[in-house]
Amino acid sequence: MSDRFSFAVTARDGAARSGVISTPRGEVRTPAFMPVGTAATVKAMLPESVAATGADILLGNTYHLMLRPTAERIARLGGLHAFMNWQRPILTDSGGFQVMSLAALRKMSEEGVRFKSHIDGSEHHLTPERSMEIQRLLGSDIVMAFDECPALPATDEVVAASMRRSMRWAARSREAFGQRPGHALFGIMQGGVTRELREESAAALCEIGFDGYAVGGLAVGEGQEAMFSVLDYAPGLLPADRPRYLMGVGKPDDIVGAVERGIDMMDCVLPSRSGRTGQAWTRRGQVNIKNARHMDDPRPLDADCTCPACRSYSRAYLHHVFRAQEIIASMLLTWHNLHYYQDLMAGLRAAIAAGQLAAFVTDFHALRAEGDIEPL
Amino acid sequence: MSDRFSFAVTARDGAARSGVISTPRGEVRTPAFMPVGTAATVKAMLPESVAATGADILLGNTYHLMLRPTAERIARLGGLHAFMNWQRPILTDSGGFQVMSLAALRKMSEEGVRFKSHIDGSEHHLTPERSMEIQRLLGSDIVMAFDECPALPATDEVVAASMRRSMRWAARSREAFGQRPGHALFGIMQGGVTRELREESAAALCEIGFDGYAVGGLAVGEGQEAMFSVLDYAPGLLPADRPRYLMGVGKPDDIVGAVERGIDMMDCVLPSRSGRTGQAWTRRGQVNIKNARHMDDPRPLDADCTCPACRSYSRAYLHHVFRAQEIIASMLLTWHNLHYYQDLMAGLRAAIAAGQLAAFVTDFHALRAEGDIEPL
Repeated sequence: MSDRFSFAVTARDGAARSGVISTPRGEVRTPAFMPVGTAATVKAMLPESVAATGADILLGNTYHLMLRPTAERIARLGGLHAFMNWQRPILTDSGGFQVMSLAALRKMSEEGVRFKSHIDGSEHHLTPERSMEIQRLLGSDIVMAFDECPALPATDEVVAASMRRSMRWAARSREAFGQRPGHALFGIMQGGVTRELREESAAALCEIGFDGYAVGGLAVGEGQEAMFSVLDYAPGLLPADRPRYLMGVGKPDDIVGAVERGIDMMDCVLPSRSGRTGQAWTRRGQVNIKNARHMDDPRPLDADCTCPACRSYSRAYLHHVFRAQEIIASMLLTWHNLHYYQDLMAGLRAAIAAGQLAAFVTDFHALRAEGDIEPL
Repeated sequence: MSDRFSFAVTARDGAARSGVISTPRGEVRTPAFMPVGTAATVKAMLPESVAATGADILLGNTYHLMLRPTAERIARLGGLHAFMNWQRPILTDSGGFQVMSLAALRKMSEEGVRFKSHIDGSEHHLTPERSMEIQRLLGSDIVMAFDECPALPATDEVVAASMRRSMRWAARSREAFGQRPGHALFGIMQGGVTRELREESAAALCEIGFDGYAVGGLAVGEGQEAMFSVLDYAPGLLPADRPRYLMGVGKPDDIVGAVERGIDMMDCVLPSRSGRTGQAWTRRGQVNIKNARHMDDPRPLDADCTCPACRSYSRAYLHHVFRAQEIIASMLLTWHNLHYYQDLMAGLRAAIAAGQLAAFVTDFHALRAEGDIEPL
């Protein structure tokens, strides 16, 4: 293991690349999908099971953790890794995005955001400096700069003003982060779907200098086509020797499209959240296990999947435990979905390494187009 | 493994005994505690985790399974063991007790019970013959005779009439069960807290002849003292060479008292249900993990426990995930509780084998009397 944070691209195929992020807590194979462990747990999973799916790194949410159990408490208890029993790398978001989507009575200023907790109404002030402090207390391996993410659609004026504030906050984040060997700070590009603003944002971030760069402000309602149109040029605006992270993405076909366009890291609650609502992701697309067609089906979700849900249970069983609202339903489907996502990432990495990404993507779409296996 | 059902007592200490039940699906070390897998799952646990706690056998609920997903469906899918991914022995109850406690619009007759499902209002008829058929369809290794269990307190007249009907149903159950090598049928003693009725019931069951015998009609509100007063003589009314099963018991001190009095098998939802409500059972008694005293406590629930919850997590973490209503809270606490129960059974078995049960029981009560560790 490295005692410093570093990134090495080991293969390229078109705009796509595969590589390795090295940290003192272990390596992250890229392109990487990061399961989300919002409140110090990936919902319905034990951390050893998350690791068994192939995940190298988790995402933790600063907003949730600062409110409960609080960053100071986690620090006293030895940091987030020890607290939640996950010894591999952790990336934490800055809290900015979730303050805007979850907190009550938000009041923005140049200084930061004042808001009330959605849990107990307590008042908090989140600034670039406070976000850096919280992420340091948590012991995060990859720290995200504090930014503002405007909801789309918005006028260019609104998007530009917000982006420029985020760039000022990025500079304050960099200053507050200081020097922390073995820990990385990522800047976040904003600018909506407007190329000139994305270019301005990228230039501002590169001027400040970060260990990695995120493409923020996407997957917020603009649609896949608009997102891909930004990803057609945005990764190329960022330094080629640093990891590029697309925040909050996404569905399997979003992920494939993002990797094709040069993205190295992603996170999304989708596989875990879907697992709790009976939606399974397979190589053939989406399966709603609550559907009556599965009631008598002795076949696994995916005969070729090696996750525990597919190895040991029938669709009929998964259907039954969902209908009966049993906790094991969330446990098994979440496991399957996270396993599927990690399998997809492994497939993408192998295809890039072999220079076969185009064929992999063609097969990916072809099998999905066939759809789920026929009912018996 | 045996291809037949058999029971061997291997050690005695006072009225207590330890031994082994052999079945084609594996051995059950007695005294045994059976976790309850109501709807084809031990709630919040994967079956391999249940096995890891030391459980040799599970209990399945005929009432729940006949309604959803139905016994016929489970049979088509290969039986309950395959359906729920538990290859070790399964005991199923007869449905009689839960019809009385859960179903709507119950109508009792000499024939059986007509009732409406609490799930969808559908009408069903449960009789000794239908109960035997359902338990055969499920593939249960230990089948329970269909009985009626009156709520206590009740007059001797009511208890006697109910017990005599249960004995007629026991004979019908025996007849309907027929010969099924490798599968066992247990009769159920009734008679409330009245010795003469218990004696009459035991004689009736022995006359019919069963592979094992349950003490039914206890743990229904009579209190531990009344229960133990029955257990002081009831096991002695049953054949010494057959397993004796106390249904629906219980708290750890109920279990210890029952084993001291000659009981070989027990089941209860308590460890799993408690796990989902934040109640942990430890050698020092009960711990309410939701209590604020645990909020900053870096210590495990029980430093000497080897379950995953105690090995890898602090009380502070368990408190946090309960407060945050995370599924992992139910997963970890259920695991701990089932592990504690199985540890207790292992301790009882070892103590009986060593002729040291009295000392074990003294230590058991002494540590519980000390109570939980002091707050920090």
